[in-house]
Amino acid sequence: MSRLKLGMVGGGQGAFIGAVHRIAARIDGKWDLVAGAFSSDPEKSKASAAELGVAPDRAYGSFQEMAEGEAAREDGIDAVAIVTPNHMHAAPAVAFLTAGIHVICDKPLAATPGQADEIAEAVRSSGRRFILTHNYTGYPLIRQARQMVADGALGDLRVVQAEYPQDWLAEEVHNKQADWRTDPNRSGAGGCIGDIGTHAYNLACFVTGLRAESVASDLDAFVPGRRVDDNVHVMLRFGGGVKGMLWASQVAVGNENALRLRVYGTKGGLEWGQENPNVMRFTRFGEPTRTLTRGGAGASEANIRVTRTPPGHPEGYLEGFANIYSEAAAIVANARDGTPLPEGLHAPGIEDGLDGMRFIAACIASSRADGAWTRLG
Amino acid sequence: MSRLKLGMVGGGQGAFIGAVHRIAARIDGKWDLVAGAFSSDPEKSKASAAELGVAPDRAYGSFQEMAEGEAAREDGIDAVAIVTPNHMHAAPAVAFLTAGIHVICDKPLAATPGQADEIAEAVRSSGRRFILTHNYTGYPLIRQARQMVADGALGDLRVVQAEYPQDWLAEEVHNKQADWRTDPNRSGAGGCIGDIGTHAYNLACFVTGLRAESVASDLDAFVPGRRVDDNVHVMLRFGGGVKGMLWASQVAVGNENALRLRVYGTKGGLEWGQENPNVMRFTRFGEPTRTLTRGGAGASEANIRVTRTPPGHPEGYLEGFANIYSEAAAIVANARDGTPLPEGLHAPGIEDGLDGMRFIAACIASSRADGAWTRLG
Amino acid sequence: MSRLKLGMVGGGQGAFIGAVHRIAARIDGKWDLVAGAFSSDPEKSKASAAELGVAPDRAYGSFQEMAEGEAAREDGIDAVAIVTPNHMHAAPAVAFLTAGIHVICDKPLAATPGQADEIAEAVRSSGRRFILTHNYTGYPLIRQARQMVADGALGDLRVVQAEYPQDWLAEEVHNKQADWRTDPNRSGAGGCIGDIGTHAYNLACFVTGLRAESVASDLDAFVPGRRVDDNVHVMLRFGGGVKGMLWASQVAVGNENALRLRVYGTKGGLEWGQENPNVMRFTRFGEPTRTLTRGGAGASEANIRVTRTPPGHPEGYLEGFANIYSEAAAIVANARDGTPLPEGLHAPGIEDGLDGMRFIAACIASSRADGAWTRLG
Amino acid sequence: MSRLKLGMVGGGQGAFIGAVHRIAARIDGKWDLVAGAFSSDPEKSKASAAELGVAPDRAYGSFQEMAEGEAAREDGIDAVAIVTPNHMHAAPAVAFLTAGIHVICDKPLAATPGQADEIAEAVRSSGRRFILTHNYTGYPLIRQARQMVADGALGDLRVVQAEYPQDWLAEEVHNKQADWRTDPNRSGAGGCIGDIGTHAYNLACFVTGLRAESVASDLDAFVPGRRVDDNVHVMLRFGGGVKGMLWASQVAVGNENALRLRVYGTKGGLEWGQENPNVMRFTRFGEPTRTLTRGGAGASEANIRVTRTPPGHPEGYLEGFANIYSEAAAIVANARDGTPLPEGLHAPGIEDGLDGMRFIAACIASSRADGAWTRLG
Repeated sequence: MSRLKLGMVGGGQGAFIGAVHRIAARIDGKWDLVAGAFSSDPEKSKASAAELGVAPDRAYGSFQEMAEGEAAREDGIDAVAIVTPNHMHAAPAVAFLTAGIHVICDKPLAATPGQADEIAEAVRSSGRRFILTHNYTGYPLIRQARQMVADGALGDLRVVQAEYPQDWLAEEVHNKQADWRTDPNRSGAGGCIGDIGTHAYNLACFVTGLRAESVASDLDAFVPGRRVDDNVHVMLRFGGGVKGMLWASQVAVGNENALRLRVYGTKGGLEWGQENPNVMRFTRFGEPTRTLTRGGAGASEANIRVTRTPPGHPEGYLEGFANIYSEAAAIVANARDGTPLPEGLHAPGIEDGLDGMRFIAACIASSRADGAWTRLG
Repeated sequence: MSRLKLGMVGGGQGAFIGAVHRIAARIDGKWDLVAGAFSSDPEKSKASAAELGVAPDRAYGSFQEMAEGEAAREDGIDAVAIVTPNHMHAAPAVAFLTAGIHVICDKPLAATPGQADEIAEAVRSSGRRFILTHNYTGYPLIRQARQMVADGALGDLRVVQAEYPQDWLAEEVHNKQADWRTDPNRSGAGGCIGDIGTHAYNLACFVTGLRAESVASDLDAFVPGRRVDDNVHVMLRFGGGVKGMLWASQVAVGNENALRLRVYGTKGGLEWGQENPNVMRFTRFGEPTRTLTRGGAGASEANIRVTRTPPGHPEGYLEGFANIYSEAAAIVANARDGTPLPEGLHAPGIEDGLDGMRFIAACIASSRADGAWTRLG
Repeated sequence: MSRLKLGMVGGGQGAFIGAVHRIAARIDGKWDLVAGAFSSDPEKSKASAAELGVAPDRAYGSFQEMAEGEAAREDGIDAVAIVTPNHMHAAPAVAFLTAGIHVICDKPLAATPGQADEIAEAVRSSGRRFILTHNYTGYPLIRQARQMVADGALGDLRVVQAEYPQDWLAEEVHNKQADWRTDPNRSGAGGCIGDIGTHAYNLACFVTGLRAESVASDLDAFVPGRRVDDNVHVMLRFGGGVKGMLWASQVAVGNENALRLRVYGTKGGLEWGQENPNVMRFTRFGEPTRTLTRGGAGASEANIRVTRTPPGHPEGYLEGFANIYSEAAAIVANARDGTPLPEGLHAPGIEDGLDGMRFIAACIASSRADGAWTRLG
Repeated sequence: MSRLKLGMVGGGQGAFIGAVHRIAARIDGKWDLVAGAFSSDPEKSKASAAELGVAPDRAYGSFQEMAEGEAAREDGIDAVAIVTPNHMHAAPAVAFLTAGIHVICDKPLAATPGQADEIAEAVRSSGRRFILTHNYTGYPLIRQARQMVADGALGDLRVVQAEYPQDWLAEEVHNKQADWRTDPNRSGAGGCIGDIGTHAYNLACFVTGLRAESVASDLDAFVPGRRVDDNVHVMLRFGGGVKGMLWASQVAVGNENALRLRVYGTKGGLEWGQENPNVMRFTRFGEPTRTLTRGGAGASEANIRVTRTPPGHPEGYLEGFANIYSEAAAIVANARDGTPLPEGLHAPGIEDGLDGMRFIAACIASSRADGAWTRLG
């Protein structure tokens, strides 16, 4: 497979997630970053381009200009990564899709349901590919967990416990990252629920193969003056009588990015945490707990397929993220020239994005309705 | 302090918790077991008495006989331990209290609110002492956690996460322990919520010094044919705007007795789990997490007061339980002859029991009302 | 089995290990402490006796007096626990054995090889029982480990890693515990090697069923002015080509009582640490690591036999120690009246003590000979 | 800084470490792989080149050809990565250095002391840079550990415990990786000691700033027919009276790549393990243990300098390895055009390589001399 050409919208100086996307795109050597509208300020965009080795004529002052310019080039980009704040996903996504360019987009899908629908409509009408970077689905052991659930290793599912505690917003904080995430005009109506609650929810869905039917929630903004939620408690009802709880917090002092998933069925249970993602605990009822490792004894095909180093040599967040970029490369190459899709490929897409939006909306609605069970979409 | 004389109701052959109470009573050498109605079958009661070194004339065929007999003796028991199934707490408790004998009772307080009220009334009218064995409050680091919260080490509290997963009832099981716990006539209307949910709830209250004002819950009986809940999801609202979640389960495959408590405030966070109870993680916001140990560097007075061995020599469940029995000994000795109460003494009592009953009732009511927020009592 | 009568030499006010022995003897209700020479100062001995509920006429001013007095009584003690500093083991042990009284003795066996031989001779000539409290052999998972090795679950053994780091003597310290342990006249020529190195060594031998044939060692006294070693590095050669390393330290800052054992064979490996003794990691080559628990799924008979509480309710140091006392009770009862010994009984005895003395001597000799491989005894 | 051009010797199909070097070189976007002699078989070399996107005219059939060819090009490589088996380090290293091309070389330095000296002589005479990929020194917390030791946070050092257990060679295995590592003609006289023992030793030296003065060792080849050691026990004497132990094993069943370092001084202790490299335990004597994290609260400048993602988003083996490549880029850029070296830069070099060779030789010699203390070099 020849290398693919990537453009980026957002991710200029001071951004966090743009740099992550760039490393993720580099790790497996399948993408070259060749164009960008790194900032809404053209000067800053050009400065970032220079730093990143992007040619000056492909350092654009706006995403509109970039979509047009790249679509017109013979050697135009194969896909664009959109790494702007939530409220700035829809416009560029629609522009690039409409221009015939595949889109890799950060999560959540958008700041509002209306924006989300616009993207979905553009995906449908354009026939272009859309990959949403719910990056935690790229961890090898999460792939194995999904496979194990699908294969029945846990029996019939009963209970799902998902949580994502952080503490970086436990006090009033001002920096580029914090500012937009706590501003409802940029993040959308959900704060914590959108930023990390959706990650926990998506992970639970990915592993179980289920979607929540309804939620009952209690959202709080603990830090005085905060305009969006920073701690969320959710009870979930999945299909088939499966029950769940989800806790996400930005004020849980002592937690960095302690995303954790636990799934229990009639025959077995699984536990995994992303801060040490190379191990997963699996128990068959009545047997000792086994520690499965990334690539080690007991690793499944789905695990090994997205693994680079021997077991015991830890892979982390960037490698998991890189797996999404490598899946995206396969998808884009397939769309471009029919390169066959590898077996076992998974990448979150527009449906995951829409479901996440429904999840956010339902949680907010339920909390406002004093916790009444609220259906998703 | 001279040794105290203990009697026991229940705890005959095949029982689990009776043996635990007896070891707990022995560890610090403050109690001698001298009388018992170990079974409702007089023959079995006598056989157990013989095994336990209890004199034949104090092996009673019924608790009524025992309450009468012991009250009449010059050398009668100082206190009785009631270790029967839930529905058999009230009658003996009332009988002994009325006979002027202090009571140590297993939890939950009773099978029904009516029974609970009878006990409470007997405590009030008799003036006798009543200790409820919410044994997890006896762990040294839990004592320290309570002290730290009270001293403001966590700042103003915000979030409480309590959980108690087990897996021993993941399938249909029949044995003495399982049978009464899954029989609503013996356990009361709550299964998992009463048996272990109350432990998690009591622990959260003990450490935070708070009580829940209302709950929203979702209770399930996952095992086909089970007549009481075996998995419970609860959202909590404590006083002062503190929010919580509580999960208890008897079907979470891979968990033995994984009671865990996490408490977060404006300035700090605490995490503790009972399966390795000799460590507790404490984080002051913006500082590295510290691992506090039982009796080790950083141990508070409340921790050291109930510690027997040097740090690194683990104490466990029985030692924590023994701490309740030693507190009970101090309380009973104080009631008997005015022996001064030690500073720092804590023992769960009738109020904890009543609050636990209100918690069970509110959780059941909320779940039946489709998760509506329901006030306690 | 009727209760046995226990006496104690040492263990008066300010002692650590005496209190541990007393709790250990109480836990299973098989022993009553009825006599003692708790201090070499008769007044202090009587004061301790009063505190401990020992009758004044059995509070002796010296061990000689006690051995004589108890041997003469119809209701004399069945066994004596010797919990004095190392240099004070031999004289009382010989006195009681000679008086026909069984002995439970703290480790190491003695301060000098000569003393050790005197005890061994008295054991032989008296025909009395002698139990050495290498208490870590009482942990249920250590029993299981021994059984697994014996049953071949690890295949042919290759490598043993034992370590016991502490930090309480990292600086010059003065208290009752530290003083005698750092005084060669009371502890013997070995400091750390005798106090905790022997524990690690004994544990390795217990689990593997092997004895070291020779050692190469490097002993240090890091704290200025310290007259005995406080950090020991040892390479070991066991029988059958099995190799090992042993590290014991009293100056390893951050360690409380981090005794740890790892054993590897052709087919499997085991890892266990005493600070969280209720879990053990076991790996069959080519399979995921299993976490075995005390009493849980995968627990062997040898594990369950010495377990009191359900899995997940942690047992600790005192319960492990109590197992030694319960084994001792069975041994003494058997000697007294032929009560049959239970299947699976194990208790460290005089041979373990002598081997420990040989281990200490060989390590000291090797270190003095610049690490030359030195045979044990 | 503009991108640098990298060549590679070795690392063709079926190799493990070549792929690791390539990812490491890509992660921070500072290197482009543009040339290679990926195999000693020219056809295979070309096939690998094609897969890797290396132009056909820079796919060389031998390293000699490549050194010559690249030295002659205007746009020749800035540095070459040598990722062949140990016995094939010296010849290409000398060739490239002599041709004026900087070298990045896998460890250990060479298969024999003679080869090592040849490389060292070429480094000296050429004036070119030489970076040895002791990649574990690239972990952020290892950088912090070194800084903390240097800053005196541990006081005067006393004890170092290093270990590196694996189990992949517990049985006879045949594959490309295993074959050369167990063949003395290709790996050198040391097996386990050279392959992973040097990593553990180098890590201990890096963190402490010390070198071993002498060693006493016991090397074994446990697997029947194995011609090099697969388990090594070493006692160490560093400068200044610091003592250490080192265990490395390829037969410790249940271990993947469990490299671990523990360092203790008069005031503090540190513990770190590479399988979960984002946390490090640090204890100041008399205080609770703190858990330091990569980039988190308490992270030092040396830690943060080589960190990419927020704390709690784990970085792993590849990121640590990438740090070495980024340091190498800075070194090579500095050599090329005087680009200033960043503050805090560290990269293992020829001296580390020579010291590692002395360590291997001394361990082998000591083991042959029945463990006699043997000086390094």
